[in-house]
Amino acid sequence: MFTLYSLKDGLANVEGFYYDGVNCGLRPDPSQGDLAFIRSNRPCRITTMFTTNRFQAAPLRHASRYGKSFEGNFLLANAKNANAMTGEAGIRDIETVLGALPKELGAQNPVMSSTGVIGYRLPVDKIVKGLDKLDWNARNSDAAARAIMTTDSFKKELCFEVELENGERFRVAAIAKGAGMINPAMATMLCFIATDAAVPAEEMEELLEEAVSLSFNRISVDGDTSTNDSVFLMANGASGAYEREAFAEALKKITFELAMLILKDGEGANKVVAFEVTGAASDEEAAVAAVALSNSLLVKTALFGEDPNWGRIASTIGASGVECEEEKLVIHYDDLLVYDAEHRELDPEREEKAYAVMKKDSFKIRCDLGMGEGSFTAYGCDLSYDYVKINAEYRT
Amino acid sequence: MFTLYSLKDGLANVEGFYYDGVNCGLRPDPSQGDLAFIRSNRPCRITTMFTTNRFQAAPLRHASRYGKSFEGNFLLANAKNANAMTGEAGIRDIETVLGALPKELGAQNPVMSSTGVIGYRLPVDKIVKGLDKLDWNARNSDAAARAIMTTDSFKKELCFEVELENGERFRVAAIAKGAGMINPAMATMLCFIATDAAVPAEEMEELLEEAVSLSFNRISVDGDTSTNDSVFLMANGASGAYEREAFAEALKKITFELAMLILKDGEGANKVVAFEVTGAASDEEAAVAAVALSNSLLVKTALFGEDPNWGRIASTIGASGVECEEEKLVIHYDDLLVYDAEHRELDPEREEKAYAVMKKDSFKIRCDLGMGEGSFTAYGCDLSYDYVKINAEYRT
Repeated sequence: MFTLYSLKDGLANVEGFYYDGVNCGLRPDPSQGDLAFIRSNRPCRITTMFTTNRFQAAPLRHASRYGKSFEGNFLLANAKNANAMTGEAGIRDIETVLGALPKELGAQNPVMSSTGVIGYRLPVDKIVKGLDKLDWNARNSDAAARAIMTTDSFKKELCFEVELENGERFRVAAIAKGAGMINPAMATMLCFIATDAAVPAEEMEELLEEAVSLSFNRISVDGDTSTNDSVFLMANGASGAYEREAFAEALKKITFELAMLILKDGEGANKVVAFEVTGAASDEEAAVAAVALSNSLLVKTALFGEDPNWGRIASTIGASGVECEEEKLVIHYDDLLVYDAEHRELDPEREEKAYAVMKKDSFKIRCDLGMGEGSFTAYGCDLSYDYVKINAEYRT
Repeated sequence: MFTLYSLKDGLANVEGFYYDGVNCGLRPDPSQGDLAFIRSNRPCRITTMFTTNRFQAAPLRHASRYGKSFEGNFLLANAKNANAMTGEAGIRDIETVLGALPKELGAQNPVMSSTGVIGYRLPVDKIVKGLDKLDWNARNSDAAARAIMTTDSFKKELCFEVELENGERFRVAAIAKGAGMINPAMATMLCFIATDAAVPAEEMEELLEEAVSLSFNRISVDGDTSTNDSVFLMANGASGAYEREAFAEALKKITFELAMLILKDGEGANKVVAFEVTGAASDEEAAVAAVALSNSLLVKTALFGEDPNWGRIASTIGASGVECEEEKLVIHYDDLLVYDAEHRELDPEREEKAYAVMKKDSFKIRCDLGMGEGSFTAYGCDLSYDYVKINAEYRT
């Protein structure tokens, strides 16, 4: 048994961590941050999960030198430049930047995390000069969360405190960025999680993988997967407290809620929809169908148009190639039956109710295939004029 | 050796075929056709290729009773109602409609082809009454081509005449519809091909499959695949002429040009782009990368924004999961080098040239992966505000 509290101010509650964000000249507006750090003042362990994109950006290849998990206490992040497709020069640039960190910080295996435009060398001089502006002893979660934003329309930071049965407490906090190129394969998002829980080193990878599989790997804004997507879990044990089940729950909760915030902030998106597929021949088939629904342009534009037309839902399931039969399929919007073999055309009463569901900011589209026991839920959003506008005009 | 001529007036050149299109009340505007037929006045063979969508619409399931190829001389088509997800009742409705054809037509194994909204019963009464309006001895290719349009902004009809070395001639003509839900798995498109070539029955399937694999199966408007996609090849041998190589060439040419017309008419699309992937580990891997490029929202919005940003091209290839390396990749826009390991950042001169290519209505994005001998070309279009508008407002 344990109790979970939601706290304000993101990272600011976690013992032994410092963080700040400043403008170092990557963004033209000096009031907007573009450089942030998170460090632990005591020994710390870092576990990473990186993009499945074959062209991993330089910071991911650099951090991978230390392995998937390693002793490390320092992370530097920048916006506006992804340091991707920059070859070996991209890695040398990271070494130059990290080599300029003040020695007194005692940075152990420091790493970088970058987001922004692909194919341009990191502006090393600006970043190295920017290091002087950072307050290494600040606990400015707001500034750090804002400095990693790109097309995000709001900052994303959360913190949960866990109280164990014996009265001991630990915190799990995180900042994240991401609003486009979000896909079940993790996509353009950065998420930095810091905890003062005493997580055993050997449990970190499994815990992080489980949490990510239930959160960031289930959301899609546009089906694209970037070169830079990264989740970092930093654990310094400062609280001395730990209980696996409680920590796993807090980690799942923070990653899931951040995933929903990213989806809510999906470029141009107005609504968040859960695509719950049940009764599939297997969980894998359920995932194929649910992810197809979350990525279908025809489904996404129907959501934007608030059209309860279930034909596009059925057609997308059929097109995904999973085992399904017209006579066994059942579709609900929230609790409203919109299709089964006995109810194919929406009568006026059900159509009116269906319109009402479609107008909500958030709802479920539930599809039971009637073929087996497989299930999976994916999360998506609508596709609006603004998505096109943002992506036609923004140079990623 | 043979000579290929392009003729006007679509179907009107093919011997022994009749066709017409009228309004039977499915479209509210009586000046817009919604019902069409094509028939041969002599024995004829039909070969079909249908959607890979698991929920095949009723007309596809009905026609499949006769097998993939069969003796048949009559096809009836309607717009506005897909007769999809209508169960066994959908098939009975087709039988009712086709049972009302005048006996004197001598329709052998008549079939239907439908496009429009999913999940509503076919308006059988309107269609049966509409049969009386059709002129069974008309050769009105224009009316037939217009009656199958949905969101199409122009009719699609083509005809090629082939002159063989011995002076004999035959024709291959076709009408098609399709402007959205176009995907390499054939997608919402109908294509009716009529030829008076004396094609041997046993060669028809192979010839049609090859032509479709090089045309309709390489284009993508939005990555969706409908319940109704169909290609029908009707051959009545009326010319008495045939030569396999010449016929194959004409069939490939007509399906490829129709595919390009469908793409050009892609909902809201302003440009047609060829994604040519070479140097892949295999042809299959080349196809995965090329199709991913043609479907990527980030690539499609960059095309709309005319942004020469190659980062999204590279990222999409990497995200597709094919074997590739940053140091081996080479990207050209038409003949302009935009990325290789020695040229990562676009200098102002090349950037200006790249902008010029992006402004064209049609160009090639060529990606050499440098991993092997595999190659594939897919064709796509940009994603504009109008795509969102059309699909948010149109009930498919």
